[in-house]
Amino acid sequence: MKVSVKVLVSCLAALSMSTAMAQAKEERYKPNNELIVAIEPAKGQNPAEVELGKKLFFDPRLSRSGFISCNSCHNLSMGGTDNLKTSIGDKWSQGPINSPTVLNSSLNFVQFWDGRAANLQEQAGGPIANPLEMAFTHDLAVDILTSIPQYREEFKKTFNEDKITIEQITKALAAFEETLVTPNSRFDQWLGGKEDAITDQELRGYLLFKNSGCVACHNGAAVGGNSFQKMGVVEPYVTDNESAGRAGVSGKDADRMQFKVPTLRNVELTYPYFHDGAAATLSQAVDTMGRLQLGRKFSEEEVSDIVAFLKTLTGEQPSFTLPILPPSSDETPRANPWAK
Amino acid sequence: MKVSVKVLVSCLAALSMSTAMAQAKEERYKPNNELIVAIEPAKGQNPAEVELGKKLFFDPRLSRSGFISCNSCHNLSMGGTDNLKTSIGDKWSQGPINSPTVLNSSLNFVQFWDGRAANLQEQAGGPIANPLEMAFTHDLAVDILTSIPQYREEFKKTFNEDKITIEQITKALAAFEETLVTPNSRFDQWLGGKEDAITDQELRGYLLFKNSGCVACHNGAAVGGNSFQKMGVVEPYVTDNESAGRAGVSGKDADRMQFKVPTLRNVELTYPYFHDGAAATLSQAVDTMGRLQLGRKFSEEEVSDIVAFLKTLTGEQPSFTLPILPPSSDETPRANPWAK
Repeated sequence: MKVSVKVLVSCLAALSMSTAMAQAKEERYKPNNELIVAIEPAKGQNPAEVELGKKLFFDPRLSRSGFISCNSCHNLSMGGTDNLKTSIGDKWSQGPINSPTVLNSSLNFVQFWDGRAANLQEQAGGPIANPLEMAFTHDLAVDILTSIPQYREEFKKTFNEDKITIEQITKALAAFEETLVTPNSRFDQWLGGKEDAITDQELRGYLLFKNSGCVACHNGAAVGGNSFQKMGVVEPYVTDNESAGRAGVSGKDADRMQFKVPTLRNVELTYPYFHDGAAATLSQAVDTMGRLQLGRKFSEEEVSDIVAFLKTLTGEQPSFTLPILPPSSDETPRANPWAK
Repeated sequence: MKVSVKVLVSCLAALSMSTAMAQAKEERYKPNNELIVAIEPAKGQNPAEVELGKKLFFDPRLSRSGFISCNSCHNLSMGGTDNLKTSIGDKWSQGPINSPTVLNSSLNFVQFWDGRAANLQEQAGGPIANPLEMAFTHDLAVDILTSIPQYREEFKKTFNEDKITIEQITKALAAFEETLVTPNSRFDQWLGGKEDAITDQELRGYLLFKNSGCVACHNGAAVGGNSFQKMGVVEPYVTDNESAGRAGVSGKDADRMQFKVPTLRNVELTYPYFHDGAAATLSQAVDTMGRLQLGRKFSEEEVSDIVAFLKTLTGEQPSFTLPILPPSSDETPRANPWAK
C-alpha cells in the first residue's frame, strides 16, 4: 500500500481535529438540576370542554362588534399574541398594555400583567366585558350563544345544565387554553439529554443567562410567570405607559411597577416585549433587561448569544383544525359595529 | 291464534299508511337534468402554492395595521364571511359593501360584486391596497414579506424566482382560495341519486325555487356567480348603499344596480344578505327576492320551504390545520395601527 505523505498529514490533521472536537464536546456543560424545567404535554382536560372552548376562542360573536375574538389578540398563528405594542380593541381602541401570549398561560401563577385574575377561567371573562377590548357584557354574550341552537346543544352535552352561563363559557375557554402548551423545544430536548439539540453559541447564551442572574426570575417550566418583580430595579424604567402594575390591584405604593414576570417560552414569536411593548426586538429587550434589572451592560456578542439561547425556547406550536362555528339563528341579535 | 279487532285495525291502518308513504316516495320528484349541478372537489392546485397562500390568507402583516388579514372579513370559521352588513376595515372604517364569501369563489365568472376583477388572483390584490380595508400598498406588503427569512425561503422554493413579487403573493392566495370549495352538500347528494338526502319539505322548496324562476339566475355549480343581474327588476331596490354596481366599472347608466348574482352555496352561513347586507335572515332575503325580482309574494309556508331547501346547500367546510406564521425578523418594519 502506497500512501503519500500529503494524505497521511491530512489524515492525522483530521484525526487530531476530531479528537479536539470530541474533547470540546466532552467539556460542554451538561444539564444538572437546572432552574428551567421542560414543559409537559397537556393532559387531563375534558375533551368536550376543549372542543367547545376552541370554538368560543375563535368566535367574534363574544364581542360587541361581532368582529373581535380571543384569537384576534392572542393569535394562535402568531405565538398566541398580536405582535402589536398594545392591542386594537372595539372601535379601534388602543389597549392599555401589551397582550401577553396565551401559549403556556396555564403555567402562570396568576393571570394578566398585574395578576388580577387567579386563573385562566377568571381571566377569560375580562376581555369580553372590557370596553377597550371586546366591549360586550357577560349577559349579552350568554344571550347570543343561547340564541344559537348548535351551541345550546353543545353546552348542554358538555355541562349537563339547562342554561348557558358565563361560568360555562369561561370554563370551556380555560380548558381549551390549558391545551396550548408548547413542549419539545430544542432547549427542552437538551434538558432531556439530547446534547446536540442546541449549538455551542446557544449553550453559551444559556450559561450567561443563568450565571448573570436572568434565571433568578425567568425559571420553572414557563421560564417566568411565577412571581411579580419590579420593572426597573437598578435604574427606573422610563415609559409613557400608564400602568401601575401590581399597585393597581393591591393599592400599595410599594407595588408600583411590579409586574408578573412574563414567560420566555416562544419569545422569538411574541415580540414586541415588555408590558408597554416598547422593545421591538429580542436584542433590545435583552440589553434593557441587563441594564435595568441586573446593572450589567451586555456586549453585542453577549446579547447575540443570549438571543440565540432564547430562540431555543420555541416549542411545538398548537396544531388543530380551524374550528367551524355554528351559524346564528334568525333570533340571534345582529351586531352593529358602528352603533353609538 | 287470537287477534283482537283493535290490533287488526291498527295493523291495517299501519299497512295502509306505509303503502301511502311508499306511493308518496315513488311520486317524489327525482333529479332530471337540473340547472344546479354538484360541486366537484378541488384538484389540480400546486400544493406548495396552496400552503404558502394559506399562510398569507391568515397573515395580518399584509395590512397597514398588522391586524387585518384576508380571514378577518372572509372568515373560514364562518362560511368565508364576517357576518356583518359591511366589513370593518383599517381604523374601524365602514366598508362600502357586504363581504362576499370566499367559499366556492373560484366558481364565480368574475370577482367582486361589480365584477371588476377577472379572477381570484386579480381580486386578491384589491383589499390589500384598499384604504377602507387593509390600507396597505403592494410595495410595502412585498417589503414586509421579504424581510422575513422563512417567507423568502418558501417563496423561492415555490416560485423559483429571486425576489418576492405581488404577483407571487396573489397567485399563492388564489391557489389557496381555489381549494375552498364545499362539495357533498345534502342537495348535491340528492343530485347524485341519494333520494333521502333531502326531506319532503326541502324538495318542495327546491321545486318552488325552480318553478318560480329563482333558478334562472341561481344555477350552475355555485347556484349563482355566473351572470350580472339587476337588483330590483319588478320594483326598484331601496337602499342607502351607494354602490352603483356594474355601472361603476362600465360607466354605462344601463348597468346601474347590476350586480354579480351571489352564490347560494352555504347561504345558511353567509348572512346577512344582498350587496348592502340589508336582509338579516334568509326568510327576509327570500321574501324580498320574490317580490323584487319575480313580482311574486311568497306565502309564509312557501318562504319556509325555500329556506329549508337553501339550507341543504351547505357543503363540507374547508378542513385544515391552522397555519403557523413565520415570525418577523429584526429588520421587519413594525406596524403602528394608530399612526396618522
